[in-house]
Amino acid sequence: MSRVVQRRRVVKLGLEGGPRRREDVLAAEEPLEVRLGGKPFSVTMRTPGDDFDLVAGFLVSEGVVWEPGQLASLRFCAGEDGQGRQTYNVIDVQLAAGVVLPETSLERHVYTSSSCGICGTASIEAVTKGSRFGPAGPAGPVLGLGVLLSLPERLRAGQQLFERTGGVHAAGLFGFDGGLLCLREDVGRHNAVDKVIGWALREGRLPLRETVLQVSGRASFELVQKAYLAGIPVLSAVSAPSSLAVELAGQTGLTLAGFSRGRSINIYAHPERIAEAAQETAGEAEAAPA
Amino acid sequence: MSRVVQRRRVVKLGLEGGPRRREDVLAAEEPLEVRLGGKPFSVTMRTPGDDFDLVAGFLVSEGVVWEPGQLASLRFCAGEDGQGRQTYNVIDVQLAAGVVLPETSLERHVYTSSSCGICGTASIEAVTKGSRFGPAGPAGPVLGLGVLLSLPERLRAGQQLFERTGGVHAAGLFGFDGGLLCLREDVGRHNAVDKVIGWALREGRLPLRETVLQVSGRASFELVQKAYLAGIPVLSAVSAPSSLAVELAGQTGLTLAGFSRGRSINIYAHPERIAEAAQETAGEAEAAPA
Repeated sequence: MSRVVQRRRVVKLGLEGGPRRREDVLAAEEPLEVRLGGKPFSVTMRTPGDDFDLVAGFLVSEGVVWEPGQLASLRFCAGEDGQGRQTYNVIDVQLAAGVVLPETSLERHVYTSSSCGICGTASIEAVTKGSRFGPAGPAGPVLGLGVLLSLPERLRAGQQLFERTGGVHAAGLFGFDGGLLCLREDVGRHNAVDKVIGWALREGRLPLRETVLQVSGRASFELVQKAYLAGIPVLSAVSAPSSLAVELAGQTGLTLAGFSRGRSINIYAHPERIAEAAQETAGEAEAAPA
Repeated sequence: MSRVVQRRRVVKLGLEGGPRRREDVLAAEEPLEVRLGGKPFSVTMRTPGDDFDLVAGFLVSEGVVWEPGQLASLRFCAGEDGQGRQTYNVIDVQLAAGVVLPETSLERHVYTSSSCGICGTASIEAVTKGSRFGPAGPAGPVLGLGVLLSLPERLRAGQQLFERTGGVHAAGLFGFDGGLLCLREDVGRHNAVDKVIGWALREGRLPLRETVLQVSGRASFELVQKAYLAGIPVLSAVSAPSSLAVELAGQTGLTLAGFSRGRSINIYAHPERIAEAAQETAGEAEAAPA
């Protein structure tokens, strides 16, 4: 059986007619344990597949690595199910000499000290302190509106798993010409992004200048964090951004778009990279709250 | 300014006409640090509001508490932003005497030992071991299809934040008669569910027999876990479930519905609670993979 999807019998009920049995295809979800140098580091639920990319991208998003050479090795290790079969659900990462683990991960411990209050500002500082690439360039009017508006459809066209299951998120990395560089799907929207970024790390492509990351859902703080740490200059979401996502994008120089709906789109931060917005705005839309 | 939404200037671009400035309302996202007896336990991004419920529900979902008396106190504590204002982003929980913290949380450490492989089965065991309420009853044909199909619309009708922002998830707890008991919204879908369950805990309503939890998105393993630990017998999602969500529901006796789309719905596990499905199925739809 494929590890990416599973078939299940389901009872379909409707207002017309009686119950019908049919077979449904579900997106697979399995735990993945990441070990660093043999020690448990995290457990995430994910759709199996591209697991090395997932782990690599996760470590980029946590600020642990930013060059492929910092990953000495990635391998599936000990892990058997009740029938003695390898589960492929445990990955051991060996980091290269000199790679330093943050004392706490960016995601879970964003406060700076117990006397300083945790707040959005502290969260943003934690992310910007962890970045290696500086502000995401280029800053000129380089991206056409037509290309940007076309990306959700291009993303959807490439979503094989969604086509079969209707139940996964996707992240796609595109060039400024609209060409697809990498597309990944997962039951977790963060995982889909980590898989794309991990692919790029392992291909030696970081920082990801002159690219757009298009995501199928909303834009949260964490997704902006992931894009920023990978050096991606433009993040576009089909749905709404959160307040803190807009704030982080504004402060880090990232262009953040939301409600990308085919014929129109909202630009929440740094519209100056988009040719059609550049003359109008000159970089103030992301300033202070109105 | 409200802590639940924030207003921002946004540049709207479209295929027709030039860029337009407008004001947009965003769902707020802020970090929340939970401390247990003064010690940092977790940090989560969430929409401010109903924070005590969020923390209480989170502790139910982690298997730490199941009765209101186990929470000795919840209070906002130390936490000031750069301007010396209380952030309301740090909550200190004092647990009652005798309440035992699990060595590791269910969510992040589902493996049982380093020699046993991490896999879906181990994840399910970790959840069922942590439950206090046994199988979620009742098991008879007690829920009408008409009521079940009406819940997404009832949920949407109550979503004030979504109405304003278009960018939040919702969870609603309903009686078997379709009456709304509690509705919560949040940028995080897990948070919305935790807020509902925490409300119920603090109201002394656990286990939540004879209720349906309706969620606005997909049904993941974790959402089934949360419903199960609160004793909720029926979980219904607007979108698709994952494979492991179906497996956990099947093994714990929970009725799991997905693709609830007004006129039809799929039942992935334990259809026997739904009158219209009972005669046809007698509880085999959730058995083994086809």
